[in-house]
Amino acid sequence: MTASPKPVILTGDRTTGPLHLGHYAGSLKSRVTLQDSHRQYLLLADTQALTDNAHDIGRIRRNVLEVATDYLAVGIDPARSTICLQSQLPALAELSMLYLNFVTVSRLERNPTIKDEIRARGFGRDIPAGFLCYPAAQAADITAFRATIVPVGADQAPLIEQTNEIVRRINTTAGRDVLPEATAVIPATGRLPGVDGKAKMSKSGGNAIPLSASPDEIHAAVNAMYTDPGHLRVEDPGRVEGNVVFTYLDAFDPDRNLVAEFKERYRFGGLGDAVLKRRLDDVLQALVAPIRKRRAELAKDPGYVLEAVRAGTDHARSVTQETKEEITSALGLFRLDPLALAEAGPALLTA
Amino acid sequence: MTASPKPVILTGDRTTGPLHLGHYAGSLKSRVTLQDSHRQYLLLADTQALTDNAHDIGRIRRNVLEVATDYLAVGIDPARSTICLQSQLPALAELSMLYLNFVTVSRLERNPTIKDEIRARGFGRDIPAGFLCYPAAQAADITAFRATIVPVGADQAPLIEQTNEIVRRINTTAGRDVLPEATAVIPATGRLPGVDGKAKMSKSGGNAIPLSASPDEIHAAVNAMYTDPGHLRVEDPGRVEGNVVFTYLDAFDPDRNLVAEFKERYRFGGLGDAVLKRRLDDVLQALVAPIRKRRAELAKDPGYVLEAVRAGTDHARSVTQETKEEITSALGLFRLDPLALAEAGPALLTA
Repeated sequence: MTASPKPVILTGDRTTGPLHLGHYAGSLKSRVTLQDSHRQYLLLADTQALTDNAHDIGRIRRNVLEVATDYLAVGIDPARSTICLQSQLPALAELSMLYLNFVTVSRLERNPTIKDEIRARGFGRDIPAGFLCYPAAQAADITAFRATIVPVGADQAPLIEQTNEIVRRINTTAGRDVLPEATAVIPATGRLPGVDGKAKMSKSGGNAIPLSASPDEIHAAVNAMYTDPGHLRVEDPGRVEGNVVFTYLDAFDPDRNLVAEFKERYRFGGLGDAVLKRRLDDVLQALVAPIRKRRAELAKDPGYVLEAVRAGTDHARSVTQETKEEITSALGLFRLDPLALAEAGPALLTA
Repeated sequence: MTASPKPVILTGDRTTGPLHLGHYAGSLKSRVTLQDSHRQYLLLADTQALTDNAHDIGRIRRNVLEVATDYLAVGIDPARSTICLQSQLPALAELSMLYLNFVTVSRLERNPTIKDEIRARGFGRDIPAGFLCYPAAQAADITAFRATIVPVGADQAPLIEQTNEIVRRINTTAGRDVLPEATAVIPATGRLPGVDGKAKMSKSGGNAIPLSASPDEIHAAVNAMYTDPGHLRVEDPGRVEGNVVFTYLDAFDPDRNLVAEFKERYRFGGLGDAVLKRRLDDVLQALVAPIRKRRAELAKDPGYVLEAVRAGTDHARSVTQETKEEITSALGLFRLDPLALAEAGPALLTA
């Protein structure tokens, strides 16, 4: 066991599409900060993406470097954070299969996150087995890196609970604490709504602002944003809560005092949507411009992005492999080395 | 794809106990013959054993070399057959996790073998997820070696059906036949009953004759065997069907004519159980003596057995790894090599 002075954090994204401002507000921004104070691993989760995209593997493949490029564009530094590709880490699959023996089918079916997602995806009775089993795979991801901090949306917290149940069963079976439990960290900002006010921003929903949005795209998105439908004239009092423009200002405007002042004036009446939107446009243009520039540079050199992922994956492979060996050894599985024979002695061959 | 002139056969045993005469009659004997005509892989299935023995991993560990020693003792030649340890082949876990995305939970639940075994083990609702998923893991084993011939008991045939369903889904998704279908070969002999006449010979049932049985153990087992309870006097006619001694003579006596003559005389009346049992004792003593001798020699040199398993596992690791890469490449998952980048070109970075 190699003790690290910094706490280990595991985050990542399914490689099903390029990232957008919702990802930035909810996680990318804090990842850039966390890479100094934490040992941070970012998982390009192509294997997990397969659990509900086996019919469209091309989409998963095409988005691996897209997501990696987004990481680098926002300021993730491959020298401080490890970016790695899930499908290239065999120990994750080995631990997943191992953990499936330490969780029952009915426990997986009771997982609230899985229940919700099965409903959301309309799987009915035809759930891919990989989808039902994905909490065990996530436990494998978390434990393989010995992560103790896992940032997740509020709806994903039950998955960390399930990981810790598996951790406790492994530790009990091993007779010692071979694995640490993990803590779910739920971001304070909450989930950013789409520009149309719908709860979830998504590329497929057509209500997302991509990280590489052009100035015109940002402008159009801000103009199209819902405010308070009852706020017809500038002098009318307006509602701040549920007002998408304010939600975005809360998430992105670095000038907290200005936002507080805007809120007060808007509630009182006398502040028009146009002023608000101009401010948000300025804020988002300033935020996205350097990301877009850096992303365009990276896009010219995909070999650099690939190399960052390759090097990170190599490092992650040895880390996860080491954990896997510690776990199987602690559990007492057979080891194919002469040392195991010496340890076990002739007893091995007396039934 | 490396074409092999010999058909590939995959067999193996869960490492939950040393093998016995039931294994010999049902599979070991034919494996010794098949290793010349076939490319034969023998899987020491410790990972599969975990699916219902996670509470007793020590038992699995202790029996890895026991089973390997049994293989060598009966005449499996590591130069002609590959003996390999399942838990040391990461590609099997990777393919298992992949295949779980190509089979639904309800399909797994409908598998007759799984249904029967869940009942037999008394799992009820608390089925370990690994147990429900084991048909996908078996599909991984079979396909990773590109096995086209899989000897199984009649009750296991539905598992091969399920493997072939997964193979067809993989081939359809890949758009070409990246994997061959497999054929279940059901041995003609059927399952050897226990010495007490119960359907299943098992060490835990106390009705098995181990491959390393001593002369006295064999003698006692034969003496304890059920014959025809209605055959009280030598001159009475006796029943051959369901008579355990005849079942064993059918399975092991090399002199088919003598067995035929015995059956005729027994049915007619005038042949005593003592004569039959003496014959069976002679036959089993002659069969087991060289196995026991060889097993005792091997037990003195566990390093040799370990080395055979280690070398076989190394070979199997590269074979299964190669298949895994062919499959993921055919399915179009992202490959972390510069070639992939060259193939995909700049399109990779345009969402």
